[in-house]
Amino acid sequence: MHRAAARAFCVTEVAAFSFNKLVIFGVGLIGGSLARALRERGAFSDNVDGEKRVIGVGRTTKSSARALELGVVDATAAPDDDASLRDALSNADIVLLAAPVAQTQALLERIAPFLAPGTIVTDAGSTKSDVVAAARAALGERVRQFVPGHPIAGRESSGVDAALPDLYVNRNVVLCALPENPRESVETIAAMWRATGAAVHAMSPEQHDRVFASVSHLPHVLSFALVEQILNSPDAALKFSFAAGGFRDFTRIAASSPEMWRDVCVANRAALLDEIDDYTAVLARLRAAIDAGDGAALEAVFARSREARSAWQDRAANTAAVRTSSDDSPAK
Amino acid sequence: MHRAAARAFCVTEVAAFSFNKLVIFGVGLIGGSLARALRERGAFSDNVDGEKRVIGVGRTTKSSARALELGVVDATAAPDDDASLRDALSNADIVLLAAPVAQTQALLERIAPFLAPGTIVTDAGSTKSDVVAAARAALGERVRQFVPGHPIAGRESSGVDAALPDLYVNRNVVLCALPENPRESVETIAAMWRATGAAVHAMSPEQHDRVFASVSHLPHVLSFALVEQILNSPDAALKFSFAAGGFRDFTRIAASSPEMWRDVCVANRAALLDEIDDYTAVLARLRAAIDAGDGAALEAVFARSREARSAWQDRAANTAAVRTSSDDSPAK
Repeated sequence: MHRAAARAFCVTEVAAFSFNKLVIFGVGLIGGSLARALRERGAFSDNVDGEKRVIGVGRTTKSSARALELGVVDATAAPDDDASLRDALSNADIVLLAAPVAQTQALLERIAPFLAPGTIVTDAGSTKSDVVAAARAALGERVRQFVPGHPIAGRESSGVDAALPDLYVNRNVVLCALPENPRESVETIAAMWRATGAAVHAMSPEQHDRVFASVSHLPHVLSFALVEQILNSPDAALKFSFAAGGFRDFTRIAASSPEMWRDVCVANRAALLDEIDDYTAVLARLRAAIDAGDGAALEAVFARSREARSAWQDRAANTAAVRTSSDDSPAK
Repeated sequence: MHRAAARAFCVTEVAAFSFNKLVIFGVGLIGGSLARALRERGAFSDNVDGEKRVIGVGRTTKSSARALELGVVDATAAPDDDASLRDALSNADIVLLAAPVAQTQALLERIAPFLAPGTIVTDAGSTKSDVVAAARAALGERVRQFVPGHPIAGRESSGVDAALPDLYVNRNVVLCALPENPRESVETIAAMWRATGAAVHAMSPEQHDRVFASVSHLPHVLSFALVEQILNSPDAALKFSFAAGGFRDFTRIAASSPEMWRDVCVANRAALLDEIDDYTAVLARLRAAIDAGDGAALEAVFARSREARSAWQDRAANTAAVRTSSDDSPAK
């Protein structure tokens, strides 16, 4: 783990976090929930100087306008208008990129000319190695101002209307601090996320991408694949009409955004291919056991899986209570 | 579709169903819920003659005793005691096998010597081709008394304590009537399930096994396989600690009974192997698209899957309202 990251997590007083100006690129569920959480938790309370505090920069005028209408942002800026963007970014404490990861490099190139030296940029992308590469390409040595991040929060619903002030309470946020990041910058981003109720963890970008390829990206691919398989079968309608609870749970994530998951699959290609290959090997072993009628081998795998899944469920249920005091400890 | 099955579904008056004596082998969630549903819906109400109405025959004395204690059954019988079994089966209208499918042949062989000509036997097994083969082997020409069935109801919880009187309301029950079954016998079993609030459908055993291999058995294998893969990886603990909503939904069914799913996999081997092979081919195509960075191909599959999954969800949400009046029509 990078030294900068390992030293980064010493801000424990949530109330200590306050700032003047946050600029959010992509005011949807993730960015909108951050703004609402900080607002409700008083992160702006002792910094009254009349300036607009949260600026939303949307891909479309419509989404920004909606964020303004809902009071999620105090003002909006147009990403393709130099003056508007310069004004938005001047004196910004923090810039959050909450747009699809494939847009990271283009967004950072757009921001770079207007980026003040004291501003910290972070992101909310589901993949990190590609985001770091994009940031290095776009920012050069100013990559020191970019602290890569990933809040782990549900994305079945999307858009700023779905934004919630408590979306991040007891959720995990992973920061993949760069060797170039000043310790104080990482601390500031960690403190921002803690102020939303989240627990902050440190990983390298590679470790992050391996972990999420396994527990998030692969399950999405597998879920999409099952629906695709049924659609391609001759008796698809009959099969769908008898699909019940197991199918419902297994395929819930197949209702996720095709664009987002296309980008994730491409962005995290290497780690995801490794996981698909490992998974295919496990499935082939189960297939062989079924073919051989080897009930004992099947039962051993199923029992082991059930035990691990149940233990995970129990830990997850207990995490809310435990997390406040101890969840950051691995990063210390 | 068999002629007997196609003619079988003309009993529409729930109130018309009543009977004297039901014997349930395996009083767990499935058998216990049937007993409770029939009791609450008054299926016994106009047949008062002092006889015990529901007899539970458990694998263990303990489970039968618990069913008796809860009032789910009126009496219990010991499966390895000839006198007890003869007494339980005498004058029985219906016998339900709600034990693991692998026990079907042994159970029917045990029952056969005490089976009155007027008794109808049915089952609740998740697979049907193997159950039909077991019934033919155990009963010979008396297989005419055996009407294969499969109530599609959740099984994450199990045991008679989890039994609910409304478990089958708006659920599907598939009957795979045999050519040998008298029309009246199939009608009686269909009426029994309708009296619980379920919708009854007809399929051949082969069709049933193909459909459920696809929408139920395969997803279970895939879910168990994902947990197994993570367990086998060097950073399993880290992965589990960052698993979130997608993992939770995808692996909910990996908490299912290892014994039951071992039996299902072996019992439905042929259909399940076909599904695993089809699935592996779909996954290999997605892998190739990811490897090639073919975002358009991935997005097309993901978008198609999402649309189908969302349409399924919408239909499922509407089914409760629709089902009462029209869900049986395909079988008429």
